[in-house]
Amino acid sequence: MLDLNPKHPIVITGHGYYLPPKIETSKDLSKKINKSEDWIVSRTGVLERRISEIDVDKMGAIAAEKAIGEKSAPDLIINASGVPKQTIPDTSIFIQKELGYENIPSFSVHATCLSFIVALNVASSLISSNSYNKILIVSSDRGTRGRNFNEPESAALLGDAAGAIYIEKSNDLSSGIINYNMQTYPDGASLTEVRGGGTNLHPQDSKTLNEDNLFSMNGPKVYKMARKKVYDMIANDLSINNLNQNDIRLVVPHQASGMAVKAYSKYGGFDKEKVVDIISTTGNCVAASLPLGLAISLEKNILNKDDYVYLIGTGAGLSIASILIKI
Amino acid sequence: MLDLNPKHPIVITGHGYYLPPKIETSKDLSKKINKSEDWIVSRTGVLERRISEIDVDKMGAIAAEKAIGEKSAPDLIINASGVPKQTIPDTSIFIQKELGYENIPSFSVHATCLSFIVALNVASSLISSNSYNKILIVSSDRGTRGRNFNEPESAALLGDAAGAIYIEKSNDLSSGIINYNMQTYPDGASLTEVRGGGTNLHPQDSKTLNEDNLFSMNGPKVYKMARKKVYDMIANDLSINNLNQNDIRLVVPHQASGMAVKAYSKYGGFDKEKVVDIISTTGNCVAASLPLGLAISLEKNILNKDDYVYLIGTGAGLSIASILIKI
Repeated sequence: MLDLNPKHPIVITGHGYYLPPKIETSKDLSKKINKSEDWIVSRTGVLERRISEIDVDKMGAIAAEKAIGEKSAPDLIINASGVPKQTIPDTSIFIQKELGYENIPSFSVHATCLSFIVALNVASSLISSNSYNKILIVSSDRGTRGRNFNEPESAALLGDAAGAIYIEKSNDLSSGIINYNMQTYPDGASLTEVRGGGTNLHPQDSKTLNEDNLFSMNGPKVYKMARKKVYDMIANDLSINNLNQNDIRLVVPHQASGMAVKAYSKYGGFDKEKVVDIISTTGNCVAASLPLGLAISLEKNILNKDDYVYLIGTGAGLSIASILIKI
Repeated sequence: MLDLNPKHPIVITGHGYYLPPKIETSKDLSKKINKSEDWIVSRTGVLERRISEIDVDKMGAIAAEKAIGEKSAPDLIINASGVPKQTIPDTSIFIQKELGYENIPSFSVHATCLSFIVALNVASSLISSNSYNKILIVSSDRGTRGRNFNEPESAALLGDAAGAIYIEKSNDLSSGIINYNMQTYPDGASLTEVRGGGTNLHPQDSKTLNEDNLFSMNGPKVYKMARKKVYDMIANDLSINNLNQNDIRLVVPHQASGMAVKAYSKYGGFDKEKVVDIISTTGNCVAASLPLGLAISLEKNILNKDDYVYLIGTGAGLSIASILIKI
């Protein structure tokens, strides 16, 4: 294994997450979607999910406060969530407001479930190009607000959560972003959608149906379209860095579905115990799943200096993205 | 005047815009908002605006095709619009689809009217940190879809447009981004809003009113809150780069309102003929105003090598941002 130099020398100096206290079991949900608990668990791998009673800005701010801890205010706040609080302004404003800050530049990066990976690369690039020194990235999603109970599989997948990471320039230049990769295939645009909420099917249009404003996903088709592409991305990412699966300390996949998470060990070549698998208790938390999985792992202190952590997932688009971090 | 070296050495190699053919004059609009033509023009400075009959992805793709011209496909597509086509996936996917591309990474940057400035800095940072070599940035907004005719001033301001810029690494390192600045003041969050469309006032909620899904802006309060801050940003940007107003070849302001555009010459110290003022015929085109103003200026061939171009504006948040480009 080579001792790789990061393209973007950054270090994660803070992490936090928020899981709402209210739990909805798959037994509770089964009545709402007219499917048995067994059907839900076998299709989605989700035993229970959290339901938030506070909005995405407050959820994100709780995770962010933990990530900030005793540190000074960040130079920049990036919201990297899948669905906004409202159309305008972008959610970063409301997170900043909840945090009690003022005059910190903030904006949003949107790549649905992959927003956190994209934002982490953008933030790291802004740090390595000396635009900012310390950046807070927050992903907060309340997917259960947009569940379509007439589409039982996607409705059973979604859960609410927020995750936040605070990154700073790495002084010794040894830690940071080793590799970043993203691919987008617009052929898959209709496989994961909330068709409403914008200029296409505007909420005021009479032809806009209630279901247009709800989450719709053809999970099996996404899985089918993505599996080979994800496999190739893993092989490519490892190969160009002269790494193999055993060199990776931890894989943090987007928690798309139970089957998707298990595919990283079943087909991806990673040991099962190295793949963060939290879907049974959190569900698919849209953009928050990735920082949630990372923050939970960091909290457990299982990552040591120089460890390689690999974040990867699929998102609406269809997009696939990965980022390899040296701790 | 110093010969400044860019922080991010990039060059603009393509530009394009789309103004829909359908014109709505302020006389046409006067009946819809129950105000006279004189009232509209004196309050907003808008004589006419364009109304698009195609959606934001198609508008953006027309501008993008002009920006791409005979060049090869970009390495990355960034959508930098104010309002999306739909909630999921992000609009970059649909623009890429319209362009007929596949497997080009794409995502969205959202800072409402300032999305283009933020995206240009992000893209330039990604190029200067060797993540990508050539990036397409597209801003496309159809603000007239969200007009609230019961709020005549904001309804009279909005117009539809798209603008696109293609940037590449600068080989001689002499052109690029000299300075970038952004400030966000969440105290101004309620001054410019579309409150619906997200988790806060979800389209399916019975308490969500039709007007929650429409654009609302308190223009005079935005102007009052922003004027001194914008003035200070200009003074700071020029001072730290040892420049003065006369060194700037062209100012491209966000076309927030007639009064806001005129303030750059009246109070900002720039010669009136150096400030791009297109609001009378285009209105406030949300995020598209900035690349539209830049692309129109580039099309006119009024910018020469080593000229300084200064983009600046205010956006929902309240945010203020500026970017100084050396051509």
